[in-house]
Amino acid sequence: MTKTMAMLDTDPSTPLIDKQLLARCIDTCLECAQACTTCADADLGEQMVADLVKCTRLNLDCADICDTTARVLSRQTGHDRNLTRAVVQACAQACKACGDECDRHADMHEHCRVCAEVCHRCQQVCEEVLAAIG
Amino acid sequence: MTKTMAMLDTDPSTPLIDKQLLARCIDTCLECAQACTTCADADLGEQMVADLVKCTRLNLDCADICDTTARVLSRQTGHDRNLTRAVVQACAQACKACGDECDRHADMHEHCRVCAEVCHRCQQVCEEVLAAIG
Amino acid sequence: MTKTMAMLDTDPSTPLIDKQLLARCIDTCLECAQACTTCADADLGEQMVADLVKCTRLNLDCADICDTTARVLSRQTGHDRNLTRAVVQACAQACKACGDECDRHADMHEHCRVCAEVCHRCQQVCEEVLAAIG
Amino acid sequence: MTKTMAMLDTDPSTPLIDKQLLARCIDTCLECAQACTTCADADLGEQMVADLVKCTRLNLDCADICDTTARVLSRQTGHDRNLTRAVVQACAQACKACGDECDRHADMHEHCRVCAEVCHRCQQVCEEVLAAIG
Repeated sequence: MTKTMAMLDTDPSTPLIDKQLLARCIDTCLECAQACTTCADADLGEQMVADLVKCTRLNLDCADICDTTARVLSRQTGHDRNLTRAVVQACAQACKACGDECDRHADMHEHCRVCAEVCHRCQQVCEEVLAAIG
Repeated sequence: MTKTMAMLDTDPSTPLIDKQLLARCIDTCLECAQACTTCADADLGEQMVADLVKCTRLNLDCADICDTTARVLSRQTGHDRNLTRAVVQACAQACKACGDECDRHADMHEHCRVCAEVCHRCQQVCEEVLAAIG
Repeated sequence: MTKTMAMLDTDPSTPLIDKQLLARCIDTCLECAQACTTCADADLGEQMVADLVKCTRLNLDCADICDTTARVLSRQTGHDRNLTRAVVQACAQACKACGDECDRHADMHEHCRVCAEVCHRCQQVCEEVLAAIG
Repeated sequence: MTKTMAMLDTDPSTPLIDKQLLARCIDTCLECAQACTTCADADLGEQMVADLVKCTRLNLDCADICDTTARVLSRQTGHDRNLTRAVVQACAQACKACGDECDRHADMHEHCRVCAEVCHRCQQVCEEVLAAIG
């Protein structure tokens, strides 16, 4: 249990979309950023690191974008619908690219298997947020 | 003169688009992230901070997105065209939203005037990058 | 339940300190970064925003430092003890400064009360990590 | 020429230390974050990536810490001397660790040579800032 929902509830500004969905998306983005950061690191620790170069790069991108998305969604004051939509679209795209690449190494590397699972879940909640933003 | 072009030149991987354009976009994103961070802070220091709440919020979003965009564009290895496009689109959108809001306060606050100028310039170079990505 | 411990367990490199403690610190840093980002936003949404300027600023610093600390601790490969120690010390210091400032507004603003609680908890786990790093 | 000094000058709050020094430190931190991000990417693109694993990891840490330091120094309102000092100390430490590791590969890899030069320069300006903070 994180404090995300409690924090969103105490914010006096009106959120763009349902707070429960926002909290779920924020928490999943942070979980995905963490998974991608450790998956990139685990790639570097593997003897076959050269086979994991594309995976590492997409992990780094996905971690950066998920962190930024969690921040944008954590703010309720003075929001801009077009900006929020574009950021969440980028996040869904990054999660898709990274999750698909991790899938290709999931049989060989457990960190890729777990990371792919989190990426796909994060893509899905981003798509729910996009549907709610309209 | 930053070292951005020198660094891109020493990277053995093939970039997605022209390195000169990449370097210009990276440097402008970093400049914009800095301007937005200080503009948000300057808003907090103004006596009329309550009038600048939307400006502050968009500054914070724009700084986060510009930083992430500079990072994604600084990587040439194993890039994903769709991911890169989506991130740069989000950056252009954030720069537009923040630049337009800063414009509204430019007569009153010099930090908003300078920040708006940087945001609009950053939006423009993001659009050049989007055209080059195709 | 986050995937942090599962991810750390699949990383082939040897961590600097106990993984359970690392996972707890990473998760608390991410929770604190989120709380601080929303507390800064909630400050902007309050009518008495001018009284919360120092709180907002420390929230922004604390969110940035907590995010960076979570990233550094999420990497096990090729770590540097002095670098890790210095980052976690900065995080403990930021959590202390932000938690103490939020405490001053906790009676008036629920977001400051929850955020202070998370900051103090994050400072504490950072200090446990510092003791383990030696 | 970046807009950093112009932005700091328009901020109504009193900075912790001399603005010229702040601007130089901010710009060098951003330059160092960029150099480290591209050096990590270039490492991934080298055929001998396995020899560069520690370098890559320290590049990633150093980029994160430099970005955060640039942000903290870009804010003048409501600053906390102890927090600022601890962040700049972490930055100096990260630049030292990364610069020293890049030095070891500077004969072989031009990206490490340039990155080491930027890291050492960033460490130096961080130490000037620490002396000014007191």
